[in-house]
Amino acid sequence: MSKYKIAILAGDGIGPEIMREGVKVLKVIEQRNDVEFELVEAPFGASAYFSHGSSFPEQTQALVDSADAVVKGPIGLSHEESKKIPVDQQPERGALLPLRKRLNTYANFRPVYLPKSLAHFSPLKPEVVGEGIDLIMVRELVGGLYFGHKEMGVDENGVRYVREQLEYDENQIKAILHEAFKLAGARKKVLHNIHKSNVLKSSVLWNEVLEEVAQAYPEVNVVHTLVDAAATALCLNPGQFDVMVMENMFGDILSDQGGGILGSLGLMPSACLGTDGKAYYEPSHGSAPDIAGKQMANPYSMIGSMAMMLEYSFGMQDEAKKVWQAMQSVFADGYSTADLSKPGSGVQMLSTEAFGDKVVEHL
Amino acid sequence: MSKYKIAILAGDGIGPEIMREGVKVLKVIEQRNDVEFELVEAPFGASAYFSHGSSFPEQTQALVDSADAVVKGPIGLSHEESKKIPVDQQPERGALLPLRKRLNTYANFRPVYLPKSLAHFSPLKPEVVGEGIDLIMVRELVGGLYFGHKEMGVDENGVRYVREQLEYDENQIKAILHEAFKLAGARKKVLHNIHKSNVLKSSVLWNEVLEEVAQAYPEVNVVHTLVDAAATALCLNPGQFDVMVMENMFGDILSDQGGGILGSLGLMPSACLGTDGKAYYEPSHGSAPDIAGKQMANPYSMIGSMAMMLEYSFGMQDEAKKVWQAMQSVFADGYSTADLSKPGSGVQMLSTEAFGDKVVEHL
Ligand SMILES: CC(C)[C@H](C(=O)O)[C@@H](O)C(=O)O
Ligand SMILES: CC(C)[C@H](C(=O)O)[C@@H](O)C(=O)O
Repeated sequence: MSKYKIAILAGDGIGPEIMREGVKVLKVIEQRNDVEFELVEAPFGASAYFSHGSSFPEQTQALVDSADAVVKGPIGLSHEESKKIPVDQQPERGALLPLRKRLNTYANFRPVYLPKSLAHFSPLKPEVVGEGIDLIMVRELVGGLYFGHKEMGVDENGVRYVREQLEYDENQIKAILHEAFKLAGARKKVLHNIHKSNVLKSSVLWNEVLEEVAQAYPEVNVVHTLVDAAATALCLNPGQFDVMVMENMFGDILSDQGGGILGSLGLMPSACLGTDGKAYYEPSHGSAPDIAGKQMANPYSMIGSMAMMLEYSFGMQDEAKKVWQAMQSVFADGYSTADLSKPGSGVQMLSTEAFGDKVVEHL
Repeated sequence: MSKYKIAILAGDGIGPEIMREGVKVLKVIEQRNDVEFELVEAPFGASAYFSHGSSFPEQTQALVDSADAVVKGPIGLSHEESKKIPVDQQPERGALLPLRKRLNTYANFRPVYLPKSLAHFSPLKPEVVGEGIDLIMVRELVGGLYFGHKEMGVDENGVRYVREQLEYDENQIKAILHEAFKLAGARKKVLHNIHKSNVLKSSVLWNEVLEEVAQAYPEVNVVHTLVDAAATALCLNPGQFDVMVMENMFGDILSDQGGGILGSLGLMPSACLGTDGKAYYEPSHGSAPDIAGKQMANPYSMIGSMAMMLEYSFGMQDEAKKVWQAMQSVFADGYSTADLSKPGSGVQMLSTEAFGDKVVEHL
């Protein structure tokens, strides 16, 4: 029997309610497999700041160090509420980025997936969605502007200024590109390299390293696309993409656009993989404070993140697949969640909890 | 009679053929108004590099300095062709960015506009487009990562690295925000501030300055939106936006997404306004080398950029409006251009030249 210790960081806003549904699913997987999940909850995010004086308390740091995998709900507050926390303790800077750094999760996998049967959720026309949307964004997650040196000050004339650095070295670039090439090799053997080499020197180095790394993957065809052109193309013809690789900030923006073309960020799970088997899993969306506690959130992204954990951290591909299928079956049965259904469209709306229950039934 | 000297920089790829149609339109405006346009052509871009050894030759620099306004076609080559030009002479770094710096065009206005009658061009469903798309992105154009200090090198362990700075000072931020607030005041009195203050310190300063500038525009309601959330929202519900303001790189990506939701970058004109009445006008899209010379390009963005010149540089609001209406009438008559029509969709396709001719007829 395998035993895994899983850190459960529910986070802020809708975090706790979608985490609850994910945990339900894990329990089912545990019951029917020769596996034991030790689930340990810990405070993380703005709520942790208010209850424990730190958005990433020491006990949570110790837990993520000792856990076999971490699942994390969204964190963050509304623009107005954020102001009550000092800038460097705000949950993104005080908890999420330190978590990424701590586990060195350099590779963020964000599937943008909508089978043809669910194409009606997309804001795109059926003829644009075609056979469905099925691409995956591979985002560098511990470099670039996010972690570069930052300086804010006042110059000799009393003028406030800010400088922050977009930083990469060849090893960081190599690491993420190897992940992307491997994935492309296992899928359609096409890799879209998203960059801005006509302006950014970081893209120039990125592309130089890419030419070198590509030698090891002669079967993969590389297509170069400027980040701005990619933003156009994702709307006009997402079917042209399969695996897309890009630096941190570009990945932040384009993956949320990915959620847009699916119809909701609620359909965006993600895996953040580090070195030495370290990894954490999280929905790509925010904590939606406006609907928190109302049972309106879609737990798909959280449950999907758990499925990615089953696959990437525990090698349970089959169970992962079944979780995906169970979720899609719920939608295929004509149900929907609040983020996806427009009032009066005839589908039956499920609360957060009811969606989780239906997924469990299908499993 | 007013006399204006206009620098005509046709650029690369489809640049010359769409510029020709724009010039046709200017001739019509000239004929029926008490105005004289002195049109002076000059080399600019990759083609200038090959013919004159510089992508922004001195004669062109002198011309843009003395002109009353500049219109510029797209520049750039395919990823492969670009490699034949040294990195710093490539047309983006060697011509376009220096042009922006030279005229200090800090304010880039990019209308994302599709009247309801043309909603079928959008990849978005009719119910998402609703009453049409009508927003305008105000992009800071001479700061940020584009113009910050860049350093590429090899560290003491032989590892290649790159660092480039995202730089802003409060005066740059104030300048663009004043433009955005003024525009919002003249439109729906809502300003969407697009930022990433949960990660970037530059957004923290940006938002700090915004609170100060906002005091002068009490009638404008500010809505804060994270750049990633904006990328989602532009797909799901573009109607929520009217005026959006953002820094340079965010503006590059989101405005191309704007072209995506319209159905083509060929519908994206733009105005780049500087200090002391300096300005240049350009389509927001690239030079599309793959279709250059084939009369397949849509000159809407170029003619639209000329309309923006009539309005912003020459105060000819009425004529500008007529140009817009003429272009929309061509589409409303059931015609289309290659970028917009899908084969077999029944509309009649117009070549670049034929579109220009129809616009002239309508004028
Ligand atoms: C919350 C925020 C710091 C984070 C990011 O920018 O990476 C989020 O938007 C994401 O995409 O995971
Ligand atoms: C050509 C390129 C340098 C330019 C930019 O990035 O600003 C273009 O994409 C634009 O949006 O005007």
